[in-house]
Amino acid sequence: MKPALPRRAVAEFTATAFLLMAVVGSSIMAERLADGNAALALLANAIATGAALMALIFTFGEVSGAHMNPVVTLAEAAGGFFPWRDAPAYVAAQIAGAFAGVAAAHRMFGLPLFTPSLQVRSGPAQILSECIATFGLLMVISGCARSRPHMAAFAVSAYIVAAYWFTASTSFANPAVTLARSMTNTFSGIRVSDAVGFIAAQFAGAAAGVLFTRWQAKPNPAAAGGPAGG
Amino acid sequence: MKPALPRRAVAEFTATAFLLMAVVGSSIMAERLADGNAALALLANAIATGAALMALIFTFGEVSGAHMNPVVTLAEAAGGFFPWRDAPAYVAAQIAGAFAGVAAAHRMFGLPLFTPSLQVRSGPAQILSECIATFGLLMVISGCARSRPHMAAFAVSAYIVAAYWFTASTSFANPAVTLARSMTNTFSGIRVSDAVGFIAAQFAGAAAGVLFTRWQAKPNPAAAGGPAGG
Amino acid sequence: MKPALPRRAVAEFTATAFLLMAVVGSSIMAERLADGNAALALLANAIATGAALMALIFTFGEVSGAHMNPVVTLAEAAGGFFPWRDAPAYVAAQIAGAFAGVAAAHRMFGLPLFTPSLQVRSGPAQILSECIATFGLLMVISGCARSRPHMAAFAVSAYIVAAYWFTASTSFANPAVTLARSMTNTFSGIRVSDAVGFIAAQFAGAAAGVLFTRWQAKPNPAAAGGPAGG
Amino acid sequence: MKPALPRRAVAEFTATAFLLMAVVGSSIMAERLADGNAALALLANAIATGAALMALIFTFGEVSGAHMNPVVTLAEAAGGFFPWRDAPAYVAAQIAGAFAGVAAAHRMFGLPLFTPSLQVRSGPAQILSECIATFGLLMVISGCARSRPHMAAFAVSAYIVAAYWFTASTSFANPAVTLARSMTNTFSGIRVSDAVGFIAAQFAGAAAGVLFTRWQAKPNPAAAGGPAGG
Repeated sequence: MKPALPRRAVAEFTATAFLLMAVVGSSIMAERLADGNAALALLANAIATGAALMALIFTFGEVSGAHMNPVVTLAEAAGGFFPWRDAPAYVAAQIAGAFAGVAAAHRMFGLPLFTPSLQVRSGPAQILSECIATFGLLMVISGCARSRPHMAAFAVSAYIVAAYWFTASTSFANPAVTLARSMTNTFSGIRVSDAVGFIAAQFAGAAAGVLFTRWQAKPNPAAAGGPAGG
Repeated sequence: MKPALPRRAVAEFTATAFLLMAVVGSSIMAERLADGNAALALLANAIATGAALMALIFTFGEVSGAHMNPVVTLAEAAGGFFPWRDAPAYVAAQIAGAFAGVAAAHRMFGLPLFTPSLQVRSGPAQILSECIATFGLLMVISGCARSRPHMAAFAVSAYIVAAYWFTASTSFANPAVTLARSMTNTFSGIRVSDAVGFIAAQFAGAAAGVLFTRWQAKPNPAAAGGPAGG
Repeated sequence: MKPALPRRAVAEFTATAFLLMAVVGSSIMAERLADGNAALALLANAIATGAALMALIFTFGEVSGAHMNPVVTLAEAAGGFFPWRDAPAYVAAQIAGAFAGVAAAHRMFGLPLFTPSLQVRSGPAQILSECIATFGLLMVISGCARSRPHMAAFAVSAYIVAAYWFTASTSFANPAVTLARSMTNTFSGIRVSDAVGFIAAQFAGAAAGVLFTRWQAKPNPAAAGGPAGG
Repeated sequence: MKPALPRRAVAEFTATAFLLMAVVGSSIMAERLADGNAALALLANAIATGAALMALIFTFGEVSGAHMNPVVTLAEAAGGFFPWRDAPAYVAAQIAGAFAGVAAAHRMFGLPLFTPSLQVRSGPAQILSECIATFGLLMVISGCARSRPHMAAFAVSAYIVAAYWFTASTSFANPAVTLARSMTNTFSGIRVSDAVGFIAAQFAGAAAGVLFTRWQAKPNPAAAGGPAGG
């Protein structure tokens, strides 16, 4: 029923590439047009990213699950909803797709394929932001996956639009995205040396998110006791 | 079937915390980036809040109902749709979550956990705004709950985006949110001494909203008479 | 099954009042905050109006149909989908609600209840705009009502957001709204003497829209012939 | 069951005309109001276009499929989902509708029916942008059509909002739209001599998109082998 792994991995590659095109491409366009108004640029960047996520989850959700994010894949595997043996292919496809997306965005705007970012993103406020952003992402994905899977495209894209604005880091919340954004010297970039801290924070936030949602979903002991007592 | 109360209360705590992060965090980010353009800042603030609400209702709607608002909990209880004995835990969780969300937003932006707000929000125009905003919120929630519960995430978040703009108070419409926003000295804040008036107006608006929706939902006497006469 | 007429008329009154609050209130807020940038003000105005429409259609769609617009009520009646004898109550409720909404918006912003508008909106470009805007509105409503009624809230609100921008008149497309907006001297207003032309254009556009959708929906003669020949 | 061809062709004509009104009309309105801020103008243009697309797909999706785009019609025919013999009428209706939409937008803003565009859009970055934009559009349409056809209105309009920002060309992705936009000397226009390159790139991207989605949708050989081996 489920497509073969190569097909699903290609779906992850393609979806993640388009996601990065949206993030990086829209940041270039916004920076060029916004005349120095950073709020306007971030608004365009957030709307473009959220809209792309919605389209991509609708397009690839039934094929590969549209994870586009290593911590999502690992969290699904940890929760027993995704086979561990497929995880390496997914993660590799996501990372490769993310870099391909950055390169494509650069080419569409006449820039070199890759340019290391000089954008400083460090300090405890940034680290906390990524931790909370990723916790929230996992919380939203798991919450919807269990009760309203067909609404996940709306919930996830809405969450990311909000998180662009309510975290100090603009919410990367995705190790593949973080790695690839270290190779774009635009306002969506991140210095290579800062990427490590972001990724560590993302894993910490994701782990907390997995524990939280697992506890939230635990079968009700009282309810379970009911039938036993009956 | 329904999760145990502690789990639902934690859901209310977490959802309300994220809602406040969205409200306060996005207001800080917007103020920093908008270069003094208040309309642009409010647009970002409204979009971030509406998007967060949508994600949170999809995520927690099936767990706790995703009230995130004491007047919603009380209105549901008054209407017979929610047990009165669970209300104190809900309201406490909402208030605690709201303060936790403000603290988290401040920390993400490198600010002290709490700072009393100096933002003046008083006068009859503000009070009327909160009264109407809360009436409308209850009207939307009850209207959707009865006829299209699965669409409530869209309706409620759309309503709040609109109400940010069409009320003079930017539509707090939530006592827990109002209390917690008295502890942020950003443009989303409210002076402690003004919070009382806001909360009173919210209760008045909510009471009117409950009466209105109860009347709207009353079984049709003509229709009810039909079968009896048959 | 359907609620009694008074209840439906009150629903129309309330929904139209909130629609006008959204239109007029957001225009006042936007004008005050936008620092003279008319595009930003119109963007906020369009988003607030579209969001309010979505919330109101979800809230009142199952009660009264959420027409909020005399030409919609008349078009539904002309198409046989709404009883002619209920139309006067609907239209009266819509017009009264529209004025109530303007007054409420003004009060929320500390303005007099009504102020005649001085905003000039005349000339053939404006008239053509209203004609096309209303044609399109009827086309969208009828198209959705027939094939995907539960999606009408999305379709109608999206259409109005677009039409704010693609017509020179910002798409009033509603005689009740037009009358009431003649009593607000904000950027959403219209001079009383210009309202007549707008309303005439709206009726012309609506009539064309009804004819168009009726033709589009005509049973397929070839298909109809199939069973007869079988 | 399906409406007769003339009715469907008129639906394509009308839908494409409204799409072009949205694209061109909103670009005129935005240019007039945005006070030289190109990011704000593009944001309004993208939101208006995406919102119009959503409304039009909901309105005409069940009638004609709401292609509004020759490469979509041809891709559907190539995939066996649309009869080749209906394609000429569809394409002709789309092109005629696109020009009618430009003329209507111009008239609504008091401009001559048609004015050749002087907007230069050439070079490899632009060509690559159109190629990727059209590939992505076909990928989204086919992905949704197979698995969640009722969500296509959301996915397609969200994709276009994103693609306005993440491609250097603002994503025309539609030969009928490209031809018609050569006749508007506004910021949404394109020089006639540049339209050829855009259209060639769109066909190339669409062809790649068709091959990609066909491969993605191929029945799983392993799964197919299962029953045979059983």
